[in-house]
Amino acid sequence: MTGRLLRPRLGVVGGLGPLATADFYRKTIDAVPAENDADHISMAILSVPQIPDRSAAIREGSDRPLPWLLEAVEMLNSLNVEIIAIACNTAHHWYDALSAGSRAEIVHIADAAIDELHRRYKGNRAAVMATRGTLRSGFYQKRLEEAGFTCRNPAAPTFQNAVDDAIRQVKLGNLEQAKDACASAFARCRDEGLEAVILACTELPVAAEDVVPEGMLVVDASRALALTCVQRLRNPDRMRNTA
Amino acid sequence: MTGRLLRPRLGVVGGLGPLATADFYRKTIDAVPAENDADHISMAILSVPQIPDRSAAIREGSDRPLPWLLEAVEMLNSLNVEIIAIACNTAHHWYDALSAGSRAEIVHIADAAIDELHRRYKGNRAAVMATRGTLRSGFYQKRLEEAGFTCRNPAAPTFQNAVDDAIRQVKLGNLEQAKDACASAFARCRDEGLEAVILACTELPVAAEDVVPEGMLVVDASRALALTCVQRLRNPDRMRNTA
Repeated sequence: MTGRLLRPRLGVVGGLGPLATADFYRKTIDAVPAENDADHISMAILSVPQIPDRSAAIREGSDRPLPWLLEAVEMLNSLNVEIIAIACNTAHHWYDALSAGSRAEIVHIADAAIDELHRRYKGNRAAVMATRGTLRSGFYQKRLEEAGFTCRNPAAPTFQNAVDDAIRQVKLGNLEQAKDACASAFARCRDEGLEAVILACTELPVAAEDVVPEGMLVVDASRALALTCVQRLRNPDRMRNTA
Repeated sequence: MTGRLLRPRLGVVGGLGPLATADFYRKTIDAVPAENDADHISMAILSVPQIPDRSAAIREGSDRPLPWLLEAVEMLNSLNVEIIAIACNTAHHWYDALSAGSRAEIVHIADAAIDELHRRYKGNRAAVMATRGTLRSGFYQKRLEEAGFTCRNPAAPTFQNAVDDAIRQVKLGNLEQAKDACASAFARCRDEGLEAVILACTELPVAAEDVVPEGMLVVDASRALALTCVQRLRNPDRMRNTA
């Protein structure tokens, strides 16, 4: 239904996992310099943890999560949202199909993250901490190249194992173990002289915040997406990304 | 629209304010002993901070927020949710009208909080930290009496001033100031020999957690509501409150 009084402006496909979406929601709130409740962005958040595993599907060459994601996008469009954020990097593997099925613009999380990297970092190499599915999909590597960067992850298998473990521990709610795993992944980046890292899985910021090594430039893709969405809605002339 | 694959089971009327809803969302996640994403409850959260000030309306004898709240409940019903939580104590002033307009049961936050108080506390007096609107409405006092308790707030005006300030500071995102104000309200309770307190405004748990005086029994109404909703959805035979 379309509200007469209520209109959720930002639609969120979330729950993948739920803690990551709670973190994203919090970041959309922090992005608004509010003096009262009404200054905040109105939102509709679908938290649907039952959507099949995105990373596993990509690795198996399956589109199993796509009908679920399409339905979530359709549901948010039925509420008449202006723009949509998908609080899961891996799900962006299906971005083109989801965008084609949506009246509301879907803001791409990798574009938001890479815009921020571009503003903050003068070097040209960045590591991408992500699920194996996101890396297999290749959309971060492609977009980084288009923006003049090279994606370069530590070669040591301990790096991706630590990233996988951090993501899994956040999903289990084990934040201490997740922090340890994040710290280990950051250490591998430092070992290989990488000084810029994109947290390209929405679970990772939940654990990474306190364990970033000094001097390392970390782009939190969730935060970048939250900021981009809030800026577009507060500055309607910037509704379309002209980059 | 009604999903074929997706069905948000818990609907949340939120954004009143947004930080309070983010806290409530987090509590629904913490309430599930999940081993993977799919164990979590599917939800649709409407975060609509534009709903007019509930406490002011009650104090002025106005029903200004009611059409907005009715529309939020209608929107969640259109998504086919099973139960609805309103992440705002004060809005429960309009509970009867909202319930009458809803196919999905609306779980009453005061019932959830008082059930928990009943389980944990052998005394018979409890303080209610709430907006002036909630206190004026009187639904907590009435429900406490029905459960055999007396609502007894500190008489010193500094108590309610501190509660008001804590709520306002959370809405402004000033968590340190909010904690100080909460600590001051708890101290007034202790001064008057009150040993059980209900945090009956969803902003308060965001600030109160670290400043609860030792030995004070504090019922977090947001957490109680989150637990009750999750338990009902995980144990469908308890879908209706038989208390």
